[in-house]
Amino acid sequence: MKGMPILAEKLDQVVDILKEAQIDCWLTFVRETAELADPCLKLISPSGVVWSSAFIFTAKGDRIVIAGKFDADAFQKSGLYTEIIEYIATPRDVLRKVLSRLNPKKIALNYSKSNTATDGLTYGMYLLLRDLLSDTPYVERFVSSDPIVRSLRGRKSKSELELIKAAIGTTEKMFGKVEEKLKMGRTEKEIADFLHSELKDKGLESAWDWDHCPIVNFGPDSPVGHAQPTLIELKPGHLVHIDFGVKQDGYCSDLQRVWYAKGKKEKSALGPIKKAFDTVVAAIQTAADNLKPGVLGYQIDSIARKVLTKAHYPEYQHALGHQLGRSAHDGGALLGPRWERYGESPTIPIEAHQVFTLELGIQTEAGYVGLEEDVVVTRNGCEFLSKPQTKLTYI
Amino acid sequence: MKGMPILAEKLDQVVDILKEAQIDCWLTFVRETAELADPCLKLISPSGVVWSSAFIFTAKGDRIVIAGKFDADAFQKSGLYTEIIEYIATPRDVLRKVLSRLNPKKIALNYSKSNTATDGLTYGMYLLLRDLLSDTPYVERFVSSDPIVRSLRGRKSKSELELIKAAIGTTEKMFGKVEEKLKMGRTEKEIADFLHSELKDKGLESAWDWDHCPIVNFGPDSPVGHAQPTLIELKPGHLVHIDFGVKQDGYCSDLQRVWYAKGKKEKSALGPIKKAFDTVVAAIQTAADNLKPGVLGYQIDSIARKVLTKAHYPEYQHALGHQLGRSAHDGGALLGPRWERYGESPTIPIEAHQVFTLELGIQTEAGYVGLEEDVVVTRNGCEFLSKPQTKLTYI
Repeated sequence: MKGMPILAEKLDQVVDILKEAQIDCWLTFVRETAELADPCLKLISPSGVVWSSAFIFTAKGDRIVIAGKFDADAFQKSGLYTEIIEYIATPRDVLRKVLSRLNPKKIALNYSKSNTATDGLTYGMYLLLRDLLSDTPYVERFVSSDPIVRSLRGRKSKSELELIKAAIGTTEKMFGKVEEKLKMGRTEKEIADFLHSELKDKGLESAWDWDHCPIVNFGPDSPVGHAQPTLIELKPGHLVHIDFGVKQDGYCSDLQRVWYAKGKKEKSALGPIKKAFDTVVAAIQTAADNLKPGVLGYQIDSIARKVLTKAHYPEYQHALGHQLGRSAHDGGALLGPRWERYGESPTIPIEAHQVFTLELGIQTEAGYVGLEEDVVVTRNGCEFLSKPQTKLTYI
Repeated sequence: MKGMPILAEKLDQVVDILKEAQIDCWLTFVRETAELADPCLKLISPSGVVWSSAFIFTAKGDRIVIAGKFDADAFQKSGLYTEIIEYIATPRDVLRKVLSRLNPKKIALNYSKSNTATDGLTYGMYLLLRDLLSDTPYVERFVSSDPIVRSLRGRKSKSELELIKAAIGTTEKMFGKVEEKLKMGRTEKEIADFLHSELKDKGLESAWDWDHCPIVNFGPDSPVGHAQPTLIELKPGHLVHIDFGVKQDGYCSDLQRVWYAKGKKEKSALGPIKKAFDTVVAAIQTAADNLKPGVLGYQIDSIARKVLTKAHYPEYQHALGHQLGRSAHDGGALLGPRWERYGESPTIPIEAHQVFTLELGIQTEAGYVGLEEDVVVTRNGCEFLSKPQTKLTYI
């Protein structure tokens, strides 16, 4: 089954993570995953399910699946679970029996106000679970699984890291091809269409939603952010900015690159453009120099932000970096400011083996200078997984 | 933008549905939809979002989007909303201001214990919403949006029905091609691989998860249900059963067909196989004869079930039919028994313009006789969208 080695690696991480989090039981409760799949599912299951299913992991090493009769086959075949229990009319009795036997002190459920990667339990399923366990002590023992999920998803296994590197490599090659297409008169949309055709040719998905991946900006009038490519044509004096990532074998890249379209008489970009570019490079490098296990995301974000403000540029209006993996935005600890909408994610200590983006930009009179690199946190620092852009490329 | 005509059709349905449901305000609250997307989103938005966003529809016709600065572009461009409000640090103030202005009596949120198509609000987002609205009267006004969503999703618009018909047509053609491949010695897996290659060739997705779509069963020893195709080889005396659907232009089909592999000396299938086949056909036809607006799903399920039990066959251990549309299991009213795991879905009155599967089967000594047809509910009854299989096909 595709992805089984990674699944085995992830399941092998669970017991240690439960112990560290001091949670004795983790329960993932899902149904109809073709319609809506808890993001945790891919970390713990070889297959989607139709009927309500419970995946129960304990700090003692239990790996129990309670699944509908017609869903159970994939779990049996995987050989990855210690117990597989099938039901037909309702999971009520078997679920109560299993919990009564395990008698966990805490039952971690997949919800989080700030981490989307954890927050896979729907409110209806939460209410259903309360119903199924009504009049038992277990409904009083629910806690958030966020400490478990953010570590399990954040700590990339060896195979996961290889796949992320491969996705980055593919993206860098595509950026190389894009460069050849950046001729005067081309529109943003043509460049986006070209990258889409590259994805289709290779049978790859975009790292985030198709219509907004890539983001392509030519010159100062192009809308920056989560906007679709326009019919603006490339002209001399334009900065070209592309934000793009691929999803390859289930893992994502996320990079931003910039080019400058010189006028005929220009030898190089004007001073203000160069200065903005160098400041962005310096901010990313300074952040990378300080990123290591144990630091808090907002500290790293603040270091990068200061590089900009010291050079008298406005602050960027987003986070410096997010985790990268199965999704372009992989959840958990964030290198971001302590703004309300980021919840607690900027204050979660950074761990080794997490993969982060480092990204920021400055608006100039020639367009947007935005760069984004991908790094992995090591035991003492971090390593670039992408080849950082440190020089402005001319076209 | 692809899908925009359907989006406009769906949004045009909202005011009437809110009035019928006697709910003055419907609020969809989502974030990071590339990771986890509320199934309602496609009915109301041309685009995914990254930051927390609120879609607010009122019975008076307001269509308000509160979205992060970098997400707002697609909403502006669509021209489908009456008001688009952008925020940067937190949606708290703008959300409170909008609700204070509307002062709704009820605020319908996307949760449901039994309908996955409604149940898109995560528990973390529910808690976040409560936080954002703390100390306001609005936290006491939350109700389930299920009456809204099940009607909005269930009542297929003209364009939606055309796309479902097209997906069914594609599937029927593929079944025709499969028939040519059903030679003695072929394995279940080879047939599944063939259908997968057909999907890839046409750039289509499977209607449900790839590994279990199609389901292929040769003979009596093949595991029935949500099981992967095996290496069992086709032999004379085997029944062939295939459960398959495609997702084409965002809409699904879901059909089951059976064939009988005659032995050299057999003129036709043995009596017991024929009897089982005819009983399955009769059960589906009887269900279709009784399906119309206003009936309850469990009544139709019971009618089909009785055709089997009267003929001394065991009852099928699933629902007779589910809705079909954007997903193979489209949620809402279900033609199923009143089992706990189906919640209230078998007791929701059937509405015109809903599309249902009718599916059931009987295990025989030669294998599984399972059929599944797709029908649309009309004003007075229902119409078959598929060409029903009424004769056992010999190979």
